Amino acid sequence: MKLALIGYGAVGRAVAVLLERYRRRFPFRIVAIHTARHGTAYDPRGLGLEPVFGPPAASVREFLERARAHVMVELTPLNPLTGEPAISHIRTAFELGLHVVTANKGPLAHAYASLADQARRAGVQFRFESTVLDGAPVFNLVRHTLPGVRILGFTGVLNSTTTVVIETMRRGLTMEEGIEAARNMGITEADPGYDLDGWDAAAKTAALANVLMEARVTPLAVDTKGIRRLTPERLAELASKGKTVRLVSRARRTGSAVRLRVRAEVLPENHMLAAVGGTSNLLLLHTDLMGTIGTVCLKPGVEQTAYGILSDVADLARIAS
Amino acid sequence: MKLALIGYGAVGRAVAVLLERYRRRFPFRIVAIHTARHGTAYDPRGLGLEPVFGPPAASVREFLERARAHVMVELTPLNPLTGEPAISHIRTAFELGLHVVTANKGPLAHAYASLADQARRAGVQFRFESTVLDGAPVFNLVRHTLPGVRILGFTGVLNSTTTVVIETMRRGLTMEEGIEAARNMGITEADPGYDLDGWDAAAKTAALANVLMEARVTPLAVDTKGIRRLTPERLAELASKGKTVRLVSRARRTGSAVRLRVRAEVLPENHMLAAVGGTSNLLLLHTDLMGTIGTVCLKPGVEQTAYGILSDVADLARIAS
Repeated sequence: MKLALIGYGAVGRAVAVLLERYRRRFPFRIVAIHTARHGTAYDPRGLGLEPVFGPPAASVREFLERARAHVMVELTPLNPLTGEPAISHIRTAFELGLHVVTANKGPLAHAYASLADQARRAGVQFRFESTVLDGAPVFNLVRHTLPGVRILGFTGVLNSTTTVVIETMRRGLTMEEGIEAARNMGITEADPGYDLDGWDAAAKTAALANVLMEARVTPLAVDTKGIRRLTPERLAELASKGKTVRLVSRARRTGSAVRLRVRAEVLPENHMLAAVGGTSNLLLLHTDLMGTIGTVCLKPGVEQTAYGILSDVADLARIAS
Repeated sequence: MKLALIGYGAVGRAVAVLLERYRRRFPFRIVAIHTARHGTAYDPRGLGLEPVFGPPAASVREFLERARAHVMVELTPLNPLTGEPAISHIRTAFELGLHVVTANKGPLAHAYASLADQARRAGVQFRFESTVLDGAPVFNLVRHTLPGVRILGFTGVLNSTTTVVIETMRRGLTMEEGIEAARNMGITEADPGYDLDGWDAAAKTAALANVLMEARVTPLAVDTKGIRRLTPERLAELASKGKTVRLVSRARRTGSAVRLRVRAEVLPENHMLAAVGGTSNLLLLHTDLMGTIGTVCLKPGVEQTAYGILSDVADLARIAS
């Protein structure tokens, strides 16, 4: 499989490192990279870890036409309010008959049904395991290990920054110091407001609902409140009662609709959702035949996001072969 | 797919109910059932929910030869010290060219490598998703969603009876009352000593290590201590310090060997392993490329074990088609 990357930040570089280190396990090559900042690089024999960038291609279409890859890997920075420019890049790739793997939750949160439909008509695959829980199996779990199961709802701790901010404030420090702690861990969105106000969690909630529950919603349909009103004093008071707070995403079917909510929930310390600390994430799926099962991802880093992308590429290589 | 069941207790009946209720999702038929107590039943058009049993077949071989099924579903009561009679039944099925699905951990704990080898040579599938975590994806998770990943070890709370006994004793009741509570929930092994002394957890630990880490061990190789020495007083003392106990299974590679251990571990109440309460189970997999990820199964019942069996049948039907 030949890959064309759009975007080459921390995740893109981690993908390149994994491919270099595990050639036997993942016989894939990066043959082209397109970035806004560095320009564009091509090498049909495979770009190394230090690609040499030339002037940028005039458009994503021109880039993909020249790249002659099988898979476009979409890794551009996200505008969570629109899902662009990733959605447009993905549409272009489908038009050119390429499979798409993305780590961007925006396209799922804003346009999943239409993108999945376009992929189906084009006879290509659309994969996105790294968009929630940093590459831990969620979408592929449902796709490959739960035949005949219907997802009735889900509950999750999906945003790490708010967990780190809450843990920091619980130790008596300020919200600003919590944000700083999250930033030092490299997990904050460019604008931490997206995390604190619940937008990141809402986008992930909408993405999960669209893919797993055919919800056809956008993040605006998620009833969202963030953690802005939390204070160290409130958390200390809760701690004295053996309680804490997590930003929790919830989805459930009500008749033909799907209700989605993101809230700072007060939980007993020994609750499974409260046991998710630091950068760890947990998603519980409520199903008709398999009860409630979940996936937990402990302290993921950029390597795990990169692995999630390769697991998607490996899966579609298996299907294509 | 036509199924021949060996054993028809609570799990077997739950499988029959699921097949009756969800015919469209699972187009499989039970065409024969063999039990020690009720005798043997056959109907090539499919046995209903109230099968009529005739005299028992003289042997499992004779039963399978007459049944003309595609899959043998092995559900006999387990002798955890030997893995029999399930191992012999499975060998017979492979000899006759049948796929095998089992909910019995014994064969994995005592003879996995040899059974997997026999299945490969016979060109049939050997599946066992329901043996740990009651049907939640563990083996199929690794098989289908973690391409290229190596399992370095695991940590799990795999035995529900001990968790229920610990929770009961923590409320000031006796170990006997805890066993009674577990028995009322229908989760205790016939002899609760298998749970309390850690044998059930050791069998699951050996099974996981054999399948996921090519360990080639038996439960005797697991360094096992149970919860017999725990007292309500000790648990009260730990509770005053915000701690509790779980029977924890651990596996890790050391050079070419795999070290396996089952212990009553003291944990902070807000630890993820401690947050696994009641009949819930948690398995964390430590991997080379995907960090630590886990599967949690909340309050499973016999329906989930039955679903795990059907998920295996559905998966091998997909592969066979």
